[in-house]
Amino acid sequence: MGLSVDDATQASEVLISADLRGIDSHGVARLSGYVRLFDAGRINVKPKFTLTSEALSAANLNADAALGLVSAPYAMNLAIEKAKVTGVGLVSVSNSNHFGIAAYHAMKALPHDMIGIALTNASPLVSITNSSERLLGTNPICMAFPANKMHPLVIDMSTSAAANGKIEIAERAGKSIPETWVSDKSGNKTTNPSDLRNGGALLPLGSTLESGNHKGYGLGAIVDILSGVISGANFGPWVPPFVSFLPLPENPVGLGLGHFLGAIRVDAFRPKAEYFNAIDTWIERFKSAKPISPETKIYTHGELERLATEERSRNGIPLDPKVYEDLKTLAVKYNLTF
Amino acid sequence: MGLSVDDATQASEVLISADLRGIDSHGVARLSGYVRLFDAGRINVKPKFTLTSEALSAANLNADAALGLVSAPYAMNLAIEKAKVTGVGLVSVSNSNHFGIAAYHAMKALPHDMIGIALTNASPLVSITNSSERLLGTNPICMAFPANKMHPLVIDMSTSAAANGKIEIAERAGKSIPETWVSDKSGNKTTNPSDLRNGGALLPLGSTLESGNHKGYGLGAIVDILSGVISGANFGPWVPPFVSFLPLPENPVGLGLGHFLGAIRVDAFRPKAEYFNAIDTWIERFKSAKPISPETKIYTHGELERLATEERSRNGIPLDPKVYEDLKTLAVKYNLTF
Repeated sequence: MGLSVDDATQASEVLISADLRGIDSHGVARLSGYVRLFDAGRINVKPKFTLTSEALSAANLNADAALGLVSAPYAMNLAIEKAKVTGVGLVSVSNSNHFGIAAYHAMKALPHDMIGIALTNASPLVSITNSSERLLGTNPICMAFPANKMHPLVIDMSTSAAANGKIEIAERAGKSIPETWVSDKSGNKTTNPSDLRNGGALLPLGSTLESGNHKGYGLGAIVDILSGVISGANFGPWVPPFVSFLPLPENPVGLGLGHFLGAIRVDAFRPKAEYFNAIDTWIERFKSAKPISPETKIYTHGELERLATEERSRNGIPLDPKVYEDLKTLAVKYNLTF
Repeated sequence: MGLSVDDATQASEVLISADLRGIDSHGVARLSGYVRLFDAGRINVKPKFTLTSEALSAANLNADAALGLVSAPYAMNLAIEKAKVTGVGLVSVSNSNHFGIAAYHAMKALPHDMIGIALTNASPLVSITNSSERLLGTNPICMAFPANKMHPLVIDMSTSAAANGKIEIAERAGKSIPETWVSDKSGNKTTNPSDLRNGGALLPLGSTLESGNHKGYGLGAIVDILSGVISGANFGPWVPPFVSFLPLPENPVGLGLGHFLGAIRVDAFRPKAEYFNAIDTWIERFKSAKPISPETKIYTHGELERLATEERSRNGIPLDPKVYEDLKTLAVKYNLTF
């Protein structure tokens, strides 16, 4: 596509990290989607990054329509450099595109004994409390906490009740979905996954007002504002869709989509040894919670993804036949051996 | 009780702000609870605040067993001063007590054109995914975003499906509760509010694994770690209970309970005029979302609390007869006119 070797390598690393972690929806399965965005003229393969504002602990990056797979690691590195000096670095990004899995970016902070933060807004698919309009993306929140004896705690979650990929899987399998995941185009409960494509919406975390969906809405709003409003990117219903066949929203309120990356140095608050002792105790205690039944396993956040990484690093990454064909088609298109 | 006039005034202001905002559970209704903590020797009325760590954008405060109503505003002021210099200030607090409503603290950032953050851990009442053990508090997340033409957006939410107060109200009224709020002592669904007192637990936001309760658990964990682990306070099941009649947890892992306060200067990212224009657009757009039915009103976060503040500032704060009697008893005890 014309990216520099460095940028192509960086983008590949983000995609492959998703496959290694078992998040197949965000790995090489998306490569053809990024290429279609490029074909539609929405990706700049030779971006010129500009810091439009900068303070000792904060900055905003205009990513010049780069792949988010490239702009987010750049912004995260800047956040880490700032945190080395002041204890905290927060960098917002505008004029960007989809950044892959949030965990890749947040986890860059871990080797520096820093807490990592990665947020991004995304195409509007999620409704809000008391409305069935799609106004928010699945807007993930990821925070990664370094540990010592224990494995790092990596919390990476969409702010909707269920991620889009789960609905797609149920639809392909002809299965019904729980009525807490999606509302139909009139805002009614549904167990039919096809209702999402037919004008419905993903429900915010909490699903119903009674069960706290104003909280899921609030979390999606926090991510949208930190990623889009303070950066100068689009936000809410104006966020450009990931799929190239959908038109861009009219009268955009900003540039591209937005991210928010952060790094917090643990020893700005507490001597490292004390922090690591406490976080290990935290993880051990929660990992050893009494399960509701003897056959139930208690996992800590990021544990399943770490186990997948270990297994797939040994045995390889299984590819869906459709993804395999996609990659082969791309190899032919770009005259690569496969 | 022996607090300085300044500290007593500050503490009163936090309590009354809760009553003004219509959050009766966190206002003067709690005054007798704080006094009982004092009688139990858990509140230091002449605390000496110490910064145990400090960087340009970060610090940790040992609050010397102060009221959280006093230590949290002190920490927030420090966060604001740091944000003036570097763009961001984050201050964790250990050795503290209950800080009242989170919104009071986060909203201190608003007049400075800063985004405010207030988190705190709390007595363990909330279970985690696949366990019915009470390991987390209702650990609130509050973020306040300044606006210009529109009113500020104030998102203040517990990370459980329902706040404790809602269960108490249902129990007093002899009403059943939705089965997404509480599990009984065996981890089963229940609609009986008394099950919470009888060894049950509040459910994390998302309520069931299927509907994403690992996300509510993750959010509660983030608040607990930022408030307790990085500050040197207690965390998880070791957080001391608010009610003085419960024993303190054995083998504490830290000092008191913990908070986390933050301030982010918007113009560290973007010129103020641009930020205010964008946030006003955001709030207007979400406020004008199409409601699911014509008679449903769409509220933005913090709007109901602002309307309550306006109404109660005009007409006064209605007091529950029990709270009135409580205050009268305190007045007699401390020889005050009432």
